Amino acid sequence: MTQGAFITIEGIEGAGKTTCMQVLADRIEAHGIPLLQTREPGGTALGEDLRELLLGHRHTGMADDTELLLMFAARAEHIQRRIQPALDQGQWVLCDRFTDATYAYQGAGRDIPGERIAILEQWVQGALRPELTIVMDLPVAQGLERAGKRSTPDRFESEQAAFFERVRQGYLDIARREPGRVQVVDASRGLEEVTAGIAQVIDDFIGARNG
Amino acid sequence: MTQGAFITIEGIEGAGKTTCMQVLADRIEAHGIPLLQTREPGGTALGEDLRELLLGHRHTGMADDTELLLMFAARAEHIQRRIQPALDQGQWVLCDRFTDATYAYQGAGRDIPGERIAILEQWVQGALRPELTIVMDLPVAQGLERAGKRSTPDRFESEQAAFFERVRQGYLDIARREPGRVQVVDASRGLEEVTAGIAQVIDDFIGARNG
Repeated sequence: MTQGAFITIEGIEGAGKTTCMQVLADRIEAHGIPLLQTREPGGTALGEDLRELLLGHRHTGMADDTELLLMFAARAEHIQRRIQPALDQGQWVLCDRFTDATYAYQGAGRDIPGERIAILEQWVQGALRPELTIVMDLPVAQGLERAGKRSTPDRFESEQAAFFERVRQGYLDIARREPGRVQVVDASRGLEEVTAGIAQVIDDFIGARNG
Repeated sequence: MTQGAFITIEGIEGAGKTTCMQVLADRIEAHGIPLLQTREPGGTALGEDLRELLLGHRHTGMADDTELLLMFAARAEHIQRRIQPALDQGQWVLCDRFTDATYAYQGAGRDIPGERIAILEQWVQGALRPELTIVMDLPVAQGLERAGKRSTPDRFESEQAAFFERVRQGYLDIARREPGRVQVVDASRGLEEVTAGIAQVIDDFIGARNG
C-alpha cells in the first residue's frame, strides 16, 4: 500500500493555524483521501499529559534541555502510536506543529543550537520528515493581537514579543533552506485571501502527488 | 572550590538500596562532608511528576523510546537544578539510581541498544559521570521476595523475573567494564555483613579522595 502523505502546519501564535487545518482537511477529504488530524505537543494520552507539563504554569523554571527532551518524548509516542501506523495504512496525516516548531521555538527562540536539536530529531524520527509543511506567516504584533483576543495566554504566549520575532525568523529560515517541502502562506491578509492561498498550496500538492 | 564527589547507588528491586543510602550518608556526614541525598527518576518537582508518569499504571503501553526520553528529561532537570549546583559548591551528592539504571533497565531489560542510550547520555550529561557507583547485587528471586513484602508493586516491579534477570546482568556487565568506578556489594548476605561491605567501600573512597 502507498504510504500516506505527512503534512504539517506551523506558525507563531495567532497565525491562523486552526483555520489552515480546516481548509486543508476539507480539501483533502473532498478528494476521498482518509485523513488523521492531530497536534503537537499532544496527540496521545501521554502526549496530552506532557502538553500540560510543557504549556502549564506549574514548571515555569524548566531547563531548556528538559523542555526539548519532553517535546521529543511526546513526539516519539505520537509517531509510534499514531502517525506512523496511519501513514502505513495509507492515511494522510495533518499535524498542527511538528519538529519545525522545535527548531523555531526551542532553537531560534530559546537559542538551543540546531545541531543539538538535530541529534534528537534523528534519534526519534529516523527518516520520517513531513512531505509538505505550511508556514502561516504574519508580523508578530498582528499574531499576538489575534491570539490575545482568544483566551488566557499559556506559558509560551506570555513570552516577550522579541522571542516570537526570533521564532518567526526561525520558521522563515527553514522555509528558505527547504523550499521544496516548506510553503509560506502570507497570513496577514483577510480570511478569504488566506484561505485561497492555502487551498492553492494543497491543491497543487494533491495534484502532484496523485498525478 | 573542589568539586564534590558524585556517588550513585544501583541495584534491582529489593537489593537494599535504601539501607545502602543510609550507611553511605552516615559515613560521609561523619567526615563532616556536606551531602545532598536525592533519587531518580525524580529529584525535582518536575522530575517527581515524570516519575509518576513513568512508574504509574496510567500509561502502561508507553513506547520504549518515549520511556527513555522521559527518563533523560527528568535527568536533565535533575542535573541542572540540583546535582551540578551542589557539586559546584563542593557538596557530595548521593543519588539513588542514575544512568546505569537506564542501561540496565531500558538497555539490558528492554533491549534498547546501548549505543542509542549513549547518544542521550552524552547529549544530557556532557562529561558528568558518577565518581563512585555501588551496585547492590543479589539473586533476582531473593530481591523480588524482599520487594514483594514491602508494598503494592509498581509498573516496573510487575515485570517478569526474566526481565529482572537481564537487568541484573546489565548491572554486572557495567561493573565488569568499569571496575574503577563500579563496586559490587553482595547484598544477598545478612544485614550486618552487607552494611560492613558498604562501609568498607565508602571508607576506602573517602580515604583515597581526601588522602
